[in-house]
Amino acid sequence: MIDFQTNPDSYKHWKLSFDGPIATLSMDVNPTATQFDGYELKLNSYDLSVDIELYDAVQRLRFEHPEVRAVVMNSAKEKVFCAGANIRMLAGATHAHKVNFCKFTNETRNSIEDASKNSQQRFLCAIRGTAAGGGYELALATDYIMMADDSNSAVSLPEVPLLAVLPGTGGLTRVVDKRKVRRDRADVFCTLEEGIRGQRAVTWRLVDEVVRGSKFEEAVKERALEMAASSYRPANAQGIELTPLVKEQQDNSVTYPYVSVEIDRIDRVATVTVHAPETGVPTDLSVEEAFAQGADFWPLAVCRQLDDAILHLRFNELDTGTLIFKTCGNADVVAAYDEFVLENQSNWLMREIVLYWRRTLKRIDLTSRTMLAYVEPGSCFVGVLAELLFSVDRSYMLEGQLEDAGLPAATIRLTAASFGPYPMSNGITRLKTRFLGEPETVDACKSRLSENLNAQACDALGLVTYTPDFIDWDQETRMLIEERASFSPDCLTGMEANLRFAGPETMETKIFGRLSAWQNWIFQRPNAVSKKGALQLYGTGARPEYDLKRV
Amino acid sequence: MIDFQTNPDSYKHWKLSFDGPIATLSMDVNPTATQFDGYELKLNSYDLSVDIELYDAVQRLRFEHPEVRAVVMNSAKEKVFCAGANIRMLAGATHAHKVNFCKFTNETRNSIEDASKNSQQRFLCAIRGTAAGGGYELALATDYIMMADDSNSAVSLPEVPLLAVLPGTGGLTRVVDKRKVRRDRADVFCTLEEGIRGQRAVTWRLVDEVVRGSKFEEAVKERALEMAASSYRPANAQGIELTPLVKEQQDNSVTYPYVSVEIDRIDRVATVTVHAPETGVPTDLSVEEAFAQGADFWPLAVCRQLDDAILHLRFNELDTGTLIFKTCGNADVVAAYDEFVLENQSNWLMREIVLYWRRTLKRIDLTSRTMLAYVEPGSCFVGVLAELLFSVDRSYMLEGQLEDAGLPAATIRLTAASFGPYPMSNGITRLKTRFLGEPETVDACKSRLSENLNAQACDALGLVTYTPDFIDWDQETRMLIEERASFSPDCLTGMEANLRFAGPETMETKIFGRLSAWQNWIFQRPNAVSKKGALQLYGTGARPEYDLKRV
Repeated sequence: MIDFQTNPDSYKHWKLSFDGPIATLSMDVNPTATQFDGYELKLNSYDLSVDIELYDAVQRLRFEHPEVRAVVMNSAKEKVFCAGANIRMLAGATHAHKVNFCKFTNETRNSIEDASKNSQQRFLCAIRGTAAGGGYELALATDYIMMADDSNSAVSLPEVPLLAVLPGTGGLTRVVDKRKVRRDRADVFCTLEEGIRGQRAVTWRLVDEVVRGSKFEEAVKERALEMAASSYRPANAQGIELTPLVKEQQDNSVTYPYVSVEIDRIDRVATVTVHAPETGVPTDLSVEEAFAQGADFWPLAVCRQLDDAILHLRFNELDTGTLIFKTCGNADVVAAYDEFVLENQSNWLMREIVLYWRRTLKRIDLTSRTMLAYVEPGSCFVGVLAELLFSVDRSYMLEGQLEDAGLPAATIRLTAASFGPYPMSNGITRLKTRFLGEPETVDACKSRLSENLNAQACDALGLVTYTPDFIDWDQETRMLIEERASFSPDCLTGMEANLRFAGPETMETKIFGRLSAWQNWIFQRPNAVSKKGALQLYGTGARPEYDLKRV
Repeated sequence: MIDFQTNPDSYKHWKLSFDGPIATLSMDVNPTATQFDGYELKLNSYDLSVDIELYDAVQRLRFEHPEVRAVVMNSAKEKVFCAGANIRMLAGATHAHKVNFCKFTNETRNSIEDASKNSQQRFLCAIRGTAAGGGYELALATDYIMMADDSNSAVSLPEVPLLAVLPGTGGLTRVVDKRKVRRDRADVFCTLEEGIRGQRAVTWRLVDEVVRGSKFEEAVKERALEMAASSYRPANAQGIELTPLVKEQQDNSVTYPYVSVEIDRIDRVATVTVHAPETGVPTDLSVEEAFAQGADFWPLAVCRQLDDAILHLRFNELDTGTLIFKTCGNADVVAAYDEFVLENQSNWLMREIVLYWRRTLKRIDLTSRTMLAYVEPGSCFVGVLAELLFSVDRSYMLEGQLEDAGLPAATIRLTAASFGPYPMSNGITRLKTRFLGEPETVDACKSRLSENLNAQACDALGLVTYTPDFIDWDQETRMLIEERASFSPDCLTGMEANLRFAGPETMETKIFGRLSAWQNWIFQRPNAVSKKGALQLYGTGARPEYDLKRV
């Protein structure tokens, strides 16, 4: 069971320190504290356990340390910055773990870019020693890459020549699309085992600056202070503590205060229910009150729980092919929180909560399971929770009441949440993506803001896929689940990855759509993964045997 | 040996007929005239042999029939429009053939869209009977889809439920990105074996119009005439005949009048040399003269030969991992033709030649082999031929003269060709893509238009990767070839597909980058292709056995 919860006191692989507006995140991988058995994390190479801590650190920097304006990433090891993903780990991992691992590491690197772009917490990477493969890809996620100008420090993406796989954490895309390295130079760079050092790395746009070894630390500090000075983060802000998640795990369920996951192992379905607070409509919402509640403030608490639940399902429940999202509770309560958070984004914490929801919704979009939403009496698909409806592959809304229940018929309520603050990774909102073919419908939806839209209205607006009544509900949803379970899981993954992201492409969609898809293909090819493939033979001295056909 | 040359008199699967401004392209697949043994092309299903004829027809419509303003695609079979790619063929094909086949069929469908967009030869698809899988994908490539409104006619993409593979010819992308079908409806549609009929197909944006069966032919004719009337193709234009290519094939070479291919089977390298005409600089170029020369007019002749050579290498020379492009001849001759064609695009034939070069250069960009260019004394990388330099992964230019040869040092000459008429599939020019990180260099290049740029100048401008002199040339190019041959071919394919297309994405790049990559992955997965996979078991009545893990 892989657990994504940690905190700085428990870190085995990173050291987080603070000096005024500058934080330093030092990679110091403990070779023996691995996620699985069978390998050692030498030379600051990493596995999922290292990346879970990195994800935690990036999250905490944003919520617990608003005073931090620049983060220096460096290595605590003498001769190496980071050797990338551990090769023995990759060679021993299942296909599913490799793919999941790459996706999570990609999301974490995107979250570094998100912190810089949207929270002005800028990242500087200080490379001393070699930054190879995933090590250089980590650097690529930062704003400014400095490298010591000595015989030992170099950046490289040696995956192709050494391992017959691609750099899998955005490297190829970021080299040509973010750093805009000329494609022939990128070709040379990506086939060069030893990488590139010194001034040539600057000329080729691979790093931003090289500095003589003796002056390096001083120059890094200087640049970090400059970056901090250019950040418009609030002065004198006090962070809130991301307290440990309360979480009860049983064989077929995970329960958090506001999120519950029930797993049906026969149908291979997980039902994820998001709960509104059981209090009445809050009348005393204020920024001060939100700070006082801290990590218990509902919009933040529920987002953390949902994020954790999705990661749990991705990594620990591989056979669960379908996720059904439900909501439960008082819609007015959700609406009050939704409005409060969106209207108070001038406060850094409210803004961070919005940004965290944005990342979490993106994580849902990118989850390679069939995703459904059921809108039933008693649900509260309002505001940010309504975004779940537009994130899933299909949504079913029960028209009218259930036969024997006293609950009123289900409604959906759109708020400003659906029209801007939560863009997908393609850069536009879920509603815009949904209605690419009929942009006027986005306006029609906007004109119904804050209304309780019943099934008929939602159907007319195109907000849900189907609206069966209670007579048809059970049969329709049953047939759907059975049909979905009968399809090839791989094929659904490919189909969904192609249907979910219509419209514009961004570096993020390129990484997940193009780079990851090619990498997944290569992770299946004998040239990489068979007994005589490069990934398996690495380090043995034996030469891999390749099928020479070009495909 | 797969041959891409054919002509309407030899078609086995299509009937091409003409009625004033309307051409009708009727699919009437001969079940026994297959590309390979072991299957029959029932129900207008297709294999490569069918698509080679389609490609030929689309090309001839543009060059031989400028009077055609609208093309009606229909079926000559009673009950079926087209059943898509033949499943037995796919089940029996090698992975490499599947991938090559899908790429070629995609390129042909793109060429239909190109004819409509850029030559105003608009396509109308008239569906009577079922258009399933690749059959509907063919329809998706046209401008306007009409369907008979009867119990028999339907559109469907049944690959996911029936075969556990993706629709591989752009279907998923065109459904959500071109026709902008709402994603949840797309999800329903792509999992529905029987597809969608009648008005619902219109409401869901899957087709443009349905017409009662009895009125169908009449309505199609009416719409085709309307489309023809809205086209601005020239009146009274006379086509030119695409005469059979002269081509001499030997064990290790293919020789056309202006293109030669030499294959080195030890290094697995093909050298593709493009030759300028051996005449002097033409002083009497005129549109009339070009028409008189017809298919022998050099800019057209050399493009056809290059196109055929690339297809030959892709399909028949799978072990050839590297293509080296060279040019040979009088640069002034090439410059004269280049200028003439670009300046006379108001003439439909010159315009078609430009568009054909555009498609051929895109085909080169998309060729999954390592591509190099060698710029040596005696070469003529001028204008459109210089685009080859920016299409390849790396270019080597010999600085100065060769020791024992009298030829002057090599130069490169940029013309208007590099600044607009030949965009890549990402929608921008090769130079813009190359210099994404330094857009000012595109201007610097423009300021050197029509100059003979020597190696030093090309190096300074960043037009070539390396400029070794004759002392280093042999060793550097030898090391390069050996190094490339030592890498995993699969991995190079994935790497190059990610480095070549920086910058914006388009429907085309989405199809080749995202959809094809996922399809290639699925084509490797046991759920589709193992003995118990869906593709192998289709039609046997046995249920496929799936690995249920979601990846």
